[in-house]
Amino acid sequence: MISVEEAIDIVMSQTIEAGTEKVPLQKATGRVLQENILADRDFPSFNRVMMDGIAVNSKAWQEGRREFYVEGMQTAGAPQQALSQEQNCIEVMTGAMLPQNTDVVIRYEDVKIEDKVARVSIDEVKPLQNVHLKGTDRKLDDVLIHKNQKLSPAEIAILATVGKHTVEVVRHLKVAIVSTGDELVDVNEMPHPYQIRRSNTYALQSALQAEGHEAQAFHINDEKDALETKLREIVGEYDVVILSGGVSKGKKDYVPEILEKLNVKKLFHGVKQRPGKPFWFGVREEGSSPTAIFALPGNPVSTFMCFYAYTLPWLRKCYGLNTQILEANLAEEFDFQPPLTYFLQVKLTMDQGQLLAVPVTGKGSGDLANLLEADAFLQLPSDRSAFKAGESFPVIQYRQIF
Amino acid sequence: MISVEEAIDIVMSQTIEAGTEKVPLQKATGRVLQENILADRDFPSFNRVMMDGIAVNSKAWQEGRREFYVEGMQTAGAPQQALSQEQNCIEVMTGAMLPQNTDVVIRYEDVKIEDKVARVSIDEVKPLQNVHLKGTDRKLDDVLIHKNQKLSPAEIAILATVGKHTVEVVRHLKVAIVSTGDELVDVNEMPHPYQIRRSNTYALQSALQAEGHEAQAFHINDEKDALETKLREIVGEYDVVILSGGVSKGKKDYVPEILEKLNVKKLFHGVKQRPGKPFWFGVREEGSSPTAIFALPGNPVSTFMCFYAYTLPWLRKCYGLNTQILEANLAEEFDFQPPLTYFLQVKLTMDQGQLLAVPVTGKGSGDLANLLEADAFLQLPSDRSAFKAGESFPVIQYRQIF
Repeated sequence: MISVEEAIDIVMSQTIEAGTEKVPLQKATGRVLQENILADRDFPSFNRVMMDGIAVNSKAWQEGRREFYVEGMQTAGAPQQALSQEQNCIEVMTGAMLPQNTDVVIRYEDVKIEDKVARVSIDEVKPLQNVHLKGTDRKLDDVLIHKNQKLSPAEIAILATVGKHTVEVVRHLKVAIVSTGDELVDVNEMPHPYQIRRSNTYALQSALQAEGHEAQAFHINDEKDALETKLREIVGEYDVVILSGGVSKGKKDYVPEILEKLNVKKLFHGVKQRPGKPFWFGVREEGSSPTAIFALPGNPVSTFMCFYAYTLPWLRKCYGLNTQILEANLAEEFDFQPPLTYFLQVKLTMDQGQLLAVPVTGKGSGDLANLLEADAFLQLPSDRSAFKAGESFPVIQYRQIF
Repeated sequence: MISVEEAIDIVMSQTIEAGTEKVPLQKATGRVLQENILADRDFPSFNRVMMDGIAVNSKAWQEGRREFYVEGMQTAGAPQQALSQEQNCIEVMTGAMLPQNTDVVIRYEDVKIEDKVARVSIDEVKPLQNVHLKGTDRKLDDVLIHKNQKLSPAEIAILATVGKHTVEVVRHLKVAIVSTGDELVDVNEMPHPYQIRRSNTYALQSALQAEGHEAQAFHINDEKDALETKLREIVGEYDVVILSGGVSKGKKDYVPEILEKLNVKKLFHGVKQRPGKPFWFGVREEGSSPTAIFALPGNPVSTFMCFYAYTLPWLRKCYGLNTQILEANLAEEFDFQPPLTYFLQVKLTMDQGQLLAVPVTGKGSGDLANLLEADAFLQLPSDRSAFKAGESFPVIQYRQIF
């Protein structure tokens, strides 16, 4: 058995090149950009009026003029006008081009207009006041968004502004989720007393959906031949296979031997952690591109934890993203004796800018319902058994709470 | 003009009843539950074996027996067996029913099986060890998930377990996003020097998508007749209309007068805030159900900020969700003189369980590109002008960083 740190290193060293694809801008939210986005013009692209009011020439102002004949109106979206007489003014609207021969905008609040004459009620103006000068935010050809940026609404706004109606992003890997276990029936079936309904495939599909990611779900019973036939197909067709169940010491835990038969190279089996000790990880290098196989223990809490602690960060790394490690402060002291990394279920709260983790211990890795009470796993290191209130530890969040 | 606090109170008092709909489990992630979910059986539903190994009767153990003849095997998903002789054992697999007449599971690691005889290598066992007792996690008819819960992968797992292949959730309101402004051309058009491309509708659509929410986008030029005709249609058809532009003091800012003409009741126009001062909000009560109208100022940063500070919390409240207010500590001192609530753009970082907000001041509400550098707005109150490092303030996050 290896440590959690070793397991993470091994998993993270096995990223798969995902390739790129083009998607329409309206489908790009949450995707990872695969091109640098340059400014197609200066930002702003002209001297832009920032307030509704009048535009004047500062020379006239300096010469003492406070009343200006209104020559015309410059609206947003109209070609640039020019002030013909320095002592006059032009009414200007927010978003319009500053008219030629003007350099000061005085807002309506400081002006009274009667009979086409604007009288200014303030005593001072600054040159270029209320003017957003061409190129002050960004210059033509500046890199606005760098490759590998995850696209949030702010980036979408910029992509629209520079005319990117299609965007080059990282292709999503093809993900299969496979549950095994004779005790499992589907959601719309009525289980016998000795059966339960499948939940892991639904949970993992949902977790991927929350990342904007599709996945195909399968179920295979614990029969060697069926497992081999079906897994051969799936491993051949998908980039990532997430299995749940069949990796422990049970008499019907056939998954590791079947995977080795399919030429999947085992990279580890067993991690010094609770839950999720029997976690098996391997890669098949055959064919045009490799397939990564995460064979997770079937207990629902183990599956859930291993997905968030290993598979999701790995997937993000394949896409060129770094997972920022969030830390939280333990709200009360906690003891855990076994020499294993313990992924403690916690509820997260925010107190005066401080992230607190309140332990919500359940009844072990079979206690699926306990996940409802918590938001995250707090990763407590294996080399200690007493953890004090106020100490800060990495947190693996599965519920967005803010 | 009213304060930000008053504006929030008014907006939040105008929630719209969204109604309910049924969706398939695979589409329920992110939705808000509209029914209580009860346990359809005990959790677990039988005395469940927690480890692969052998099941014995503790009476035999207490009488000193350490070698057990293996009578049979109880696998997961198979009907319950019974131990016929107290001095024997049955091999048991994780997830299986505990056989009748047994009450202790000893894991394979502590047992050696040869010639159908299991020899136990440990000296002590506890009654019911490695047995997950029926009903210890939850009882039949316990409420597992309460109405108004937002469905994350953990809830999806539970819904699958109790057989909810369709789920009753809050219906999504019909949202229209409408940009106005003659200076705006579409993303696939080449703007004239005095024009810019539309970005607000794309940004808001993306922000709603990130919430798993659809929205229809429209653009209307600054012509009174077109505005009236088109807005009449939209207000009649949608539950929520988010406008951007046309609400300031400009000569072509027709939106407020047109909305009043369409019998939209103005609830406020103008908020003591920067950005977003000209924000207009109203409700039309006509027809079968009311329509809420958020007429946001057209500057991209203003639109963005008002959406996240007002529209999104309002939408969540319509769906029965409370927005938890996140707080962050200002990383450096900051000054803002005007007597307005200032929504300062900040970059968020986590330092030892402490959320820090680093100011990223841009060049005003037209500086769209500055949104790229920041993650959130820090809400600085209007009654002060000096803000010290380490002070904590509410934060309105637009980018998920963890």
